Amino acid sequence: MRTRPLKVALLGCGVVGSEVARIMTTHADDLAARIGAPVELAGVAVRRPDRVREGVPAELVTTDATALVKRGDIDVVVEVIGGIEPARTLITTAFEHGASVVSANKALLAQDGAALHAAAEEHGRDLYYEAAVAGAIPLIRPLRESLAGDKVNRVLGIVNGTTNFILDKMDSTGAGYQEALDEATALGYAEADPTADVEGFDAAAKAAILAGIAFHTRVRLDDVYREGMTEVTAADFASAKEMGCTIKLLAICERARDGASVTARVHPAMIPLSHPLASVRGAYNAVFVESEAAGQLMFYGPGAGGSPTASAVLGDLVAVCRNRLSGTTGPGESAYAALPVSPMGDVVTRYHISLDVADKPGVLAQVATVFAEHGVSIDTVRQQGKDGEASLVVVTHRASDAALSGTVEALRKLDTVRGVASIMRVEGE
Amino acid sequence: MRTRPLKVALLGCGVVGSEVARIMTTHADDLAARIGAPVELAGVAVRRPDRVREGVPAELVTTDATALVKRGDIDVVVEVIGGIEPARTLITTAFEHGASVVSANKALLAQDGAALHAAAEEHGRDLYYEAAVAGAIPLIRPLRESLAGDKVNRVLGIVNGTTNFILDKMDSTGAGYQEALDEATALGYAEADPTADVEGFDAAAKAAILAGIAFHTRVRLDDVYREGMTEVTAADFASAKEMGCTIKLLAICERARDGASVTARVHPAMIPLSHPLASVRGAYNAVFVESEAAGQLMFYGPGAGGSPTASAVLGDLVAVCRNRLSGTTGPGESAYAALPVSPMGDVVTRYHISLDVADKPGVLAQVATVFAEHGVSIDTVRQQGKDGEASLVVVTHRASDAALSGTVEALRKLDTVRGVASIMRVEGE
Repeated sequence: MRTRPLKVALLGCGVVGSEVARIMTTHADDLAARIGAPVELAGVAVRRPDRVREGVPAELVTTDATALVKRGDIDVVVEVIGGIEPARTLITTAFEHGASVVSANKALLAQDGAALHAAAEEHGRDLYYEAAVAGAIPLIRPLRESLAGDKVNRVLGIVNGTTNFILDKMDSTGAGYQEALDEATALGYAEADPTADVEGFDAAAKAAILAGIAFHTRVRLDDVYREGMTEVTAADFASAKEMGCTIKLLAICERARDGASVTARVHPAMIPLSHPLASVRGAYNAVFVESEAAGQLMFYGPGAGGSPTASAVLGDLVAVCRNRLSGTTGPGESAYAALPVSPMGDVVTRYHISLDVADKPGVLAQVATVFAEHGVSIDTVRQQGKDGEASLVVVTHRASDAALSGTVEALRKLDTVRGVASIMRVEGE
Repeated sequence: MRTRPLKVALLGCGVVGSEVARIMTTHADDLAARIGAPVELAGVAVRRPDRVREGVPAELVTTDATALVKRGDIDVVVEVIGGIEPARTLITTAFEHGASVVSANKALLAQDGAALHAAAEEHGRDLYYEAAVAGAIPLIRPLRESLAGDKVNRVLGIVNGTTNFILDKMDSTGAGYQEALDEATALGYAEADPTADVEGFDAAAKAAILAGIAFHTRVRLDDVYREGMTEVTAADFASAKEMGCTIKLLAICERARDGASVTARVHPAMIPLSHPLASVRGAYNAVFVESEAAGQLMFYGPGAGGSPTASAVLGDLVAVCRNRLSGTTGPGESAYAALPVSPMGDVVTRYHISLDVADKPGVLAQVATVFAEHGVSIDTVRQQGKDGEASLVVVTHRASDAALSGTVEALRKLDTVRGVASIMRVEGE
């Protein structure tokens, strides 16, 4: 074993960073044995130096992150600050000064992954980011390496623990969205401002990263269709149950059937209870992968939290350190397929639509005609009447999102349709 | 990209081998893009050259596997023959002649993994074998690389599809073992001689490999306690249901609570229906991993079959080819922890025991005394009497397997105990 240690700079020492520092200290011998050389925490950049950080020697703490990454003797920079700046500039600077980078920064990777990969390659360094998607769940490495000889056709993931906790709570207790959100907030599963989670921004960033790796194609955050889950109601869950389904907020990355394009999207969807993703409870994450040769795979685990995220960061740290010792780099960006990313209108799936309609003869015929005119084939329809009002629940066969949108627009114009109570995509069948 | 191709020799061209050859041809451009150089199938060694192999050029087929691996221009040997010999000698010869090796051979890896790793290291070559455990499910790579910065405490796996199919069938239909086995055989899930599967030999080989990687310790096949599932009855499933459990054949690799030793075992066990492994249906495999920082992870997918296994082989092939291009090797054997492997008697778990007893007063007191004398604490006990006969169902708290064995031996000597109907371990709680 080499005795001269590899030097690690840690940017950020919050929930994840402090856990990374702790494990680097407590498990130093194991890490050294697995890497083939000791690793030394050479500096820790923080914003608030006065905050006590247990287990992090005070002399390592600095507020000057730029100076730390410019030192020139740093082998690996671990970036767990999050956000776009200053993380982006610090990572680029790290490459320029000879360091490899391990990052947990989904927002930055989703927005600027291509540029960061290019910077890593220009300087012959590694950029690893297993922790950026689904916390501790090994996902980037399996997709990028284990399935490197296969063709991934679809990735279907529960990649946000907050929203899964809320939806699971609604499903199991019959609670409404707000009540379930309040409980998630009280338990620390949701932040004071839950927008990034409940509106799907967090999941969309992960979808962009996953789609890029799965399809060997650059997928930008802007390419990802995004719909939050704040409109999901207890009535939707009741409808889902009647269908033998539950509702999950899914990140879905798909190759078109002709293989010539891909799509990426985030929205709530019904999935059958028999689907492995349906039983993913609480704040857990899981990603279901369908590939040509391997078939159906699922990866399950905690999607967030200090320790799980630190586990993913440290796995990357070991890999990057090994690469440095052997003077090589791991697989970089693979975007050779360069497939076009189609808009949401091109997505083909099934739909569950609830309509409030007038309770009189001929309504079903009118509604069915509108579906037919837009080329959307109906699988089942169920009428329910009560107190002069009635509802129609229509489940379609596979149709494009554009055709479905056209259908709904036309339905709204019918006198007999008083309202479109809900539209929910049906996935995982 | 390098234009000179990397040369691959394929040993074995059965269900897996022919699929590897097919994908290498049909996906040649993708493989080349992902590796950074084209790969060329340079030779295919088979036993029966007269058999037609679609898509494999006749001029590549040879019966002289030894000459093929000795050619000297082979970059990677893919071994999908299975069994100990000639696979072992061919792999060793391959290393001696400069090739890296990708193998799907669980029996060989479990028996001679250490020697093969040593041979690979001596010659500076790679030995990859993702396909040896749980088919297409990325497992070796996540354990060896993604969790390299973590401490794995337990691996709990359904790693044999045949037995999971049989047990799932028994669970869902109430069928007995023989009936379920017959159906598995008819559907092609069980071989004509199902011994390797139903007696747990196949799962034991996988347990040895998983334990070795998880604990950075050499675990030999002989170190793995093995118990098949041919004795599991419909009555056991009924008991399991009353407990809110199902029964699975599990491969369990555990670090002792004090961290100073490890165990590996294969046996049927009750697991709670709420456990993610409980919902693994049919011939699917899944492996549940508990680690210190990451927490609970699960990897799920098809555990066998030509295409899934080929997917795993090709993922390794891409990795090994990349390593060759960059003049390095991936992580080799990691056995630095060298923890002792404890015998089955040291394993601590819970037990579900069904006793046929005389239907008269005082029996429960006698039985409870025997448990107490052996230091096995009872969690619940349930008495059922019918037609002068009675049964006692005892569920224990955690106890060592040695203490439980002593208890059962003593119970058998009681006049009032007519028989021990079943003993089943309870896991995953």
